[in-house]
Amino acid sequence: MTTQDDLLPVGLEDALPERARTMTTSMRAVLDAMDAHGYDRVRPPLVEFEHSLAGRMDGVATRRMIRFTDPDSLRTLALRSDITVQVGRIAATVMAAAPRPLRLCYAGDVALLSADQLDPARQRLQMGAELIGTDSVAAASEAVSVAIDALSAAGVTNISIDFTLPDVVDTLAQEAMPLGAEQRDAVRRELDTKDAGGLRDAGGEAYLPLLYATGPFDTAIAKLAAIDAGGALASRIAGLREIAATIGDRARVTLDPTERHGFEYQSWFGFTLYGEGARRALGRGGTYTIKGSDEAATGFSLYMDPLLDALGAANADRRETLFLPLGHDRANAARLRAIGWRTVAAVSASDDPRALGCSHVLDESDVKPL
Amino acid sequence: MTTQDDLLPVGLEDALPERARTMTTSMRAVLDAMDAHGYDRVRPPLVEFEHSLAGRMDGVATRRMIRFTDPDSLRTLALRSDITVQVGRIAATVMAAAPRPLRLCYAGDVALLSADQLDPARQRLQMGAELIGTDSVAAASEAVSVAIDALSAAGVTNISIDFTLPDVVDTLAQEAMPLGAEQRDAVRRELDTKDAGGLRDAGGEAYLPLLYATGPFDTAIAKLAAIDAGGALASRIAGLREIAATIGDRARVTLDPTERHGFEYQSWFGFTLYGEGARRALGRGGTYTIKGSDEAATGFSLYMDPLLDALGAANADRRETLFLPLGHDRANAARLRAIGWRTVAAVSASDDPRALGCSHVLDESDVKPL
Repeated sequence: MTTQDDLLPVGLEDALPERARTMTTSMRAVLDAMDAHGYDRVRPPLVEFEHSLAGRMDGVATRRMIRFTDPDSLRTLALRSDITVQVGRIAATVMAAAPRPLRLCYAGDVALLSADQLDPARQRLQMGAELIGTDSVAAASEAVSVAIDALSAAGVTNISIDFTLPDVVDTLAQEAMPLGAEQRDAVRRELDTKDAGGLRDAGGEAYLPLLYATGPFDTAIAKLAAIDAGGALASRIAGLREIAATIGDRARVTLDPTERHGFEYQSWFGFTLYGEGARRALGRGGTYTIKGSDEAATGFSLYMDPLLDALGAANADRRETLFLPLGHDRANAARLRAIGWRTVAAVSASDDPRALGCSHVLDESDVKPL
Repeated sequence: MTTQDDLLPVGLEDALPERARTMTTSMRAVLDAMDAHGYDRVRPPLVEFEHSLAGRMDGVATRRMIRFTDPDSLRTLALRSDITVQVGRIAATVMAAAPRPLRLCYAGDVALLSADQLDPARQRLQMGAELIGTDSVAAASEAVSVAIDALSAAGVTNISIDFTLPDVVDTLAQEAMPLGAEQRDAVRRELDTKDAGGLRDAGGEAYLPLLYATGPFDTAIAKLAAIDAGGALASRIAGLREIAATIGDRARVTLDPTERHGFEYQSWFGFTLYGEGARRALGRGGTYTIKGSDEAATGFSLYMDPLLDALGAANADRRETLFLPLGHDRANAARLRAIGWRTVAAVSASDDPRALGCSHVLDESDVKPL
């Protein structure tokens, strides 16, 4: 006997009407918001050479990709697990001659062979925008702004954004607070777990203030600025302040300067997005360098899945739908659809308007509530 | 050295901004048209059990699918090559209890391991609608109508629709024009190649009139009706006439009663859609039975790829875009976007509004043409 659990592999699921409708609505809103900021959509293919997907950015683990041999080229192909790397490839190759900064956006499904420990899903809808040719403070401000606009347009409320400085340890370790290579790794690990004792034991006492420079932006950035690092952090602190200033009351801003999870390929700036009703982050972004072309870029990716249930509940009001009885006037029905009615036409005398979700019925040429 | 040809595997390509924009616009128009007729979108996953994709419908060749072993279940998974079978699975399982007729629609990418001889593409965008629980004449009329509305909404002009009777040989061979099993296959092959001599040689002389009952609907259906088959075709002919009558001047109707290519799983009725500027068919549909649940269904699938170039040319007028200089008033820019402006903000003093495709520039609070 087939049970419901046997129907689909673990981590793969159908979006049924309500969820699919929320996804469609959110996706359109996000794409329209990115388009309004001048981002052109591109649609890279589902499948590429594994080498191409893996070679353009750090942090993409090929062993977690769905891979197979191409009978045509006999090379290994892979199903994409991240669209950002595909946009990087497009920018570096077919659109290498397009004027900079180049604004590209995307929306599409990505898949993994094996799921994450924290997230059992093996397929996700990824949407995002990339500003290619710059990783300046102005670029970072734009990325943050577009991401907030996109989430707001999709109906996300109570947006908060957490800033990080992905390369802060490297920056400080160079000169101001010198660390050997091994010691640097140990300090990073202790900062990841926010373990003050471990940090001291690892010889990273000077890095302790980083642990406390977290929380609401204004107070956290003041603590970060108080770290005497001979000006090594000055430009980064000024940059973060400038970005935060452009956000205004559109989102709550926090700082966690040592957060590295999810920022494997970002350079000086990274951010994580949260919203009301979502248990996990809704997206991440920051500045980075496209591997291969070594071009600077700034962008973000959104994953709406954690929010679909919350957004779906907000959209759950039943839409008005008009039942068209057998023998209805087709031209009239077409006119009603043209002015916005959703119709359900009877295909047999036994069709039940209420069971089919209709709120109204066409009686001769009159629309009547059911 | 990497050449452009090395970038992507054969048959897989990027949709760059212009093409991607046409795809987005067409897809929204088609989905909105199906929604207006009461079809609810579902989003099945990219990957399923191979068995599930192959087992629910004839005409799906698993050896052309991208397949791999699931590390979780150790079963074979496949990338979908057709979304119709997935919608059939949803109707037969998770939505088995939903009231009938059930109207579902979909839009998504499908992929193949090896391309077709006629079409080198290994990935296509498939869109379609399925009316589940009926394969009546009324259902067939609705499928044809929704398909025409969807193509029209996407901007397709000069639509023509070719009707076929996929099981016509089986119907006639049962009694009116008896044929043995082997002879039946031979007759079908000769009808496929429209070879009158071969048809005679195969002992299918009685089937010759089918070869001539093709072309514009009114004359072709009259020729089909003239075949004396003891009433075996009467209900089908009446059905085709009823469907054609509902189309009016929205499309040109033709008949080719023995056309079988692309109708491997259809039952009594099939249709192919064409439009201005497309070298290949834009879609196919008809009546069928969902394997496993044995439920009758009627639907269609659209493949817009053959038309994207033609539609793209129609949309190619450059959109008005407003350049926002450094230091512009952000609140004002947000207001301009809210009333429909597309903006491109300067991120450095060297950003060139013309090179970035802008038609207007914001000068203090005034929008000025460039």
